[in-house]
Amino acid sequence: AARERIGRLHPADIADLFELARADERPMLAAVLGDMLSADVLAEMNDYVREELIDLLAPEQVAELASELDTDDAVAIIEDMEADEQQAVLEAMEPEDRAAIEDALSFPEESAGRLMQRDLVAVPEHVTVGDVIDRLREDTDLTSDFWEIFVVDPMHKPVGTCQLSWILRTPRDIAISDVMKREQTLIPIDMDQEEVALRFQKYALISAAVVDRAGRLVGMITVDDIVHIIQEEAGEDILRLSGAGDGDINEPIRETYSARVRWLVANLGTALVASTIVGLFGGAIEHMVALAALMPIVAGVGGNAGTQTLAVTVRALAMNQLTDSNSWRAVFREMKIALLNGGTIALIAGTATGLWFGNPMLGGVIAAAMIVNIFVAGVAGVAIPLLLDRLDQDPAVASSIFVTMTTDSMGFLAFLGLAVLSGLTTL
Amino acid sequence: AARERIGRLHPADIADLFELARADERPMLAAVLGDMLSADVLAEMNDYVREELIDLLAPEQVAELASELDTDDAVAIIEDMEADEQQAVLEAMEPEDRAAIEDALSFPEESAGRLMQRDLVAVPEHVTVGDVIDRLREDTDLTSDFWEIFVVDPMHKPVGTCQLSWILRTPRDIAISDVMKREQTLIPIDMDQEEVALRFQKYALISAAVVDRAGRLVGMITVDDIVHIIQEEAGEDILRLSGAGDGDINEPIRETYSARVRWLVANLGTALVASTIVGLFGGAIEHMVALAALMPIVAGVGGNAGTQTLAVTVRALAMNQLTDSNSWRAVFREMKIALLNGGTIALIAGTATGLWFGNPMLGGVIAAAMIVNIFVAGVAGVAIPLLLDRLDQDPAVASSIFVTMTTDSMGFLAFLGLAVLSGLTTL
Ligand SMILES: [Mg+2]
Ligand SMILES: [Mg+2]
Ligand SMILES: [Mg+2]
Ligand SMILES: [Mg+2]
Ligand SMILES: [Mg+2]
Ligand SMILES: [Mg+2]
Ligand SMILES: [Mg+2]
Ligand SMILES: [Mg+2]
Ligand SMILES: [Mg+2]
Ligand SMILES: [Mg+2]
Ligand SMILES: [Mg+2]
Ligand SMILES: [Mg+2]
Ligand SMILES: [Mg+2]
Repeated sequence: AARERIGRLHPADIADLFELARADERPMLAAVLGDMLSADVLAEMNDYVREELIDLLAPEQVAELASELDTDDAVAIIEDMEADEQQAVLEAMEPEDRAAIEDALSFPEESAGRLMQRDLVAVPEHVTVGDVIDRLREDTDLTSDFWEIFVVDPMHKPVGTCQLSWILRTPRDIAISDVMKREQTLIPIDMDQEEVALRFQKYALISAAVVDRAGRLVGMITVDDIVHIIQEEAGEDILRLSGAGDGDINEPIRETYSARVRWLVANLGTALVASTIVGLFGGAIEHMVALAALMPIVAGVGGNAGTQTLAVTVRALAMNQLTDSNSWRAVFREMKIALLNGGTIALIAGTATGLWFGNPMLGGVIAAAMIVNIFVAGVAGVAIPLLLDRLDQDPAVASSIFVTMTTDSMGFLAFLGLAVLSGLTTL
Repeated sequence: AARERIGRLHPADIADLFELARADERPMLAAVLGDMLSADVLAEMNDYVREELIDLLAPEQVAELASELDTDDAVAIIEDMEADEQQAVLEAMEPEDRAAIEDALSFPEESAGRLMQRDLVAVPEHVTVGDVIDRLREDTDLTSDFWEIFVVDPMHKPVGTCQLSWILRTPRDIAISDVMKREQTLIPIDMDQEEVALRFQKYALISAAVVDRAGRLVGMITVDDIVHIIQEEAGEDILRLSGAGDGDINEPIRETYSARVRWLVANLGTALVASTIVGLFGGAIEHMVALAALMPIVAGVGGNAGTQTLAVTVRALAMNQLTDSNSWRAVFREMKIALLNGGTIALIAGTATGLWFGNPMLGGVIAAAMIVNIFVAGVAGVAIPLLLDRLDQDPAVASSIFVTMTTDSMGFLAFLGLAVLSGLTTL
């Protein structure tokens, strides 16, 4: 009875069942479900959970499952396998399916070539709406899900796209070339998935034609796959900014550990810089130990201000909102905000410190240090990611280490340095 | 000539032109473009940029632009206006358009009721494929973009969904009820947009029927709008985690300042807690000033470890991957990773400190403090967002302040406390 109820679930729900099960229960669950663990279920499953299950199968079984899927979903399953297992699976496939998958694998990971499906509907320019409908009714071998058809010239280059609703609403004798839309967004086969996703978003696309280097129609990307990519790419940036690696709760602990500890070790290195600066002021702290209690505040609030700017800049870069034409404007904008924030925080922290310690000069020093550090944080938070982006580095990955190092070091240097310069303490 | 070239651009590209122009150039650009600044362009535009432009228009002009759009897009433009301007625009609209928009505005912001469009195709169960095609060809007043039609019972409750491709591929005399799919994902009208987006993603939907509390079909949501929501919701979490407010580079500086400074003031408050702890150990630092240089390292690396866990947990919650059934598992997983990370960092930091200062006991103290603080960071990083989520609070908003406060305070307390307990220094 449980089997029957599960059999009526959507493949995505069966996949969720697996993901929510404990890792050691999954093989048993797979055995119980048997053939309900279909190709569609695998396609929906989390990468790590799927890998575990696939390791339990023979290459022939994987090949059979992959053959039931569209190329894009088959590639998603096969691309993560070890080279030798991948080879065994490919060898067990029909020559035609195998060729399509090998072709997809020849394009870089996360490119349109991997994302596209080969099954699509393309018609020549001269046919009528009636011809298209007849062809769709006769051809039983078509892809199951399509929302638009592509019109191609004799060289198989796309000349227009036609939504199915336009076909349905047009009399049979009208030429397809009078119904189609000539303006279309073509996706080059080696375009990165992030860029593909931005185009889908910007132009509200449901599907798009993929063209090879000669401009010929070779595949189609559909929006249901783009939805996953947007989720993945946007989420990736949070995880990268915090150095959490892939950040998948199904990732094996060893991999998670290795991704995260690398970041913490790097952080240890940058903390050493800040610590060295504090060390230089050892004498000053000995003479006035209140400085030790106050200095983390200057560094901490500065770090926070830097992270705010960083998050805004990384998001704007990811959404193509920051270009050459407005980068400088963004830098000036952050400077203004930093001065406003710095002034406010300086006022509060300075007054409170002055009153608390009954030492107006100490209040003045912490206020000045706050203004300096929050300003530096603002500039670093916008300039560092912009610079990394200009150097074709992912701004989400490396920026936060540099920004934190800057705000920590600058916080200690400004506060302790001003304390010495103001004569509050001596080195 | 420039006007002509711009006229051929996609509305989304014209909207981008405005967004990239300087704020003070935009009114002039609007004047030059005239009627090329169409309703579609406004619908594509950034909220803040659009608000500025709309402020320049009379209510009648806004009403006319809004009437040209689908309800969902018209609502997006009107919902952000001041109450009195909104009222003036609504009064200038045709009664029918006005009723649809007022109805939408009666649902909470970011709910399905605001997101849906009223224009859709619904047919009764008993018609044939041929009837549907004839009706689509005759009715010239239909929404322009639709990908599926909905089949309803006499009470107007949805009983099935039919992709247009299925209609195109089926002979005219087959009943629509034999072509449609009975399993459908219905969206309740008051569902939050984030939940709607997750359903679209999970079930790879292109459009979905929205039903009112009585289960009647009242609207349709299409995936092109969902793509924006996923981008927005996923991006929101980065910005909230870092306290950057809306994080839109087009936001007026005053609003950005007020959002960010609030967070920095809160941070000042939590830093005070950490600072008080350091203050308690004033004597200990005076006796051994090296502690002042080392203590930020313990707090900083702990803070980073906490942020990693926090980012992973917030993402998993946002994607519905953490439920009652696996929350405890996630906590234990983070504890294990924290022990591995803590052990590694303790080894490096402890050895380096011991050698550098020629003081093995100091090395031991920093190592122990690192293990404690990274463990606490891991637990706080996963438990705090889970708890906030259980209390129906957004885990992305408040977590990071609590986590940072915990790791800062605990870092100082563990390090300075252990230094005293070990006899390295005295209070
Ligand atoms: Mg799933
Ligand atoms: Mg993959
Ligand atoms: Mg992978
Ligand atoms: Mg696909
Ligand atoms: Mg799919
Ligand atoms: Mg990527
Ligand atoms: Mg990215
Ligand atoms: Mg845009
Ligand atoms: Mg809005
Ligand atoms: Mg819409
Ligand atoms: Mg739209
Ligand atoms: Mg939201
Ligand atoms: Mg959220």
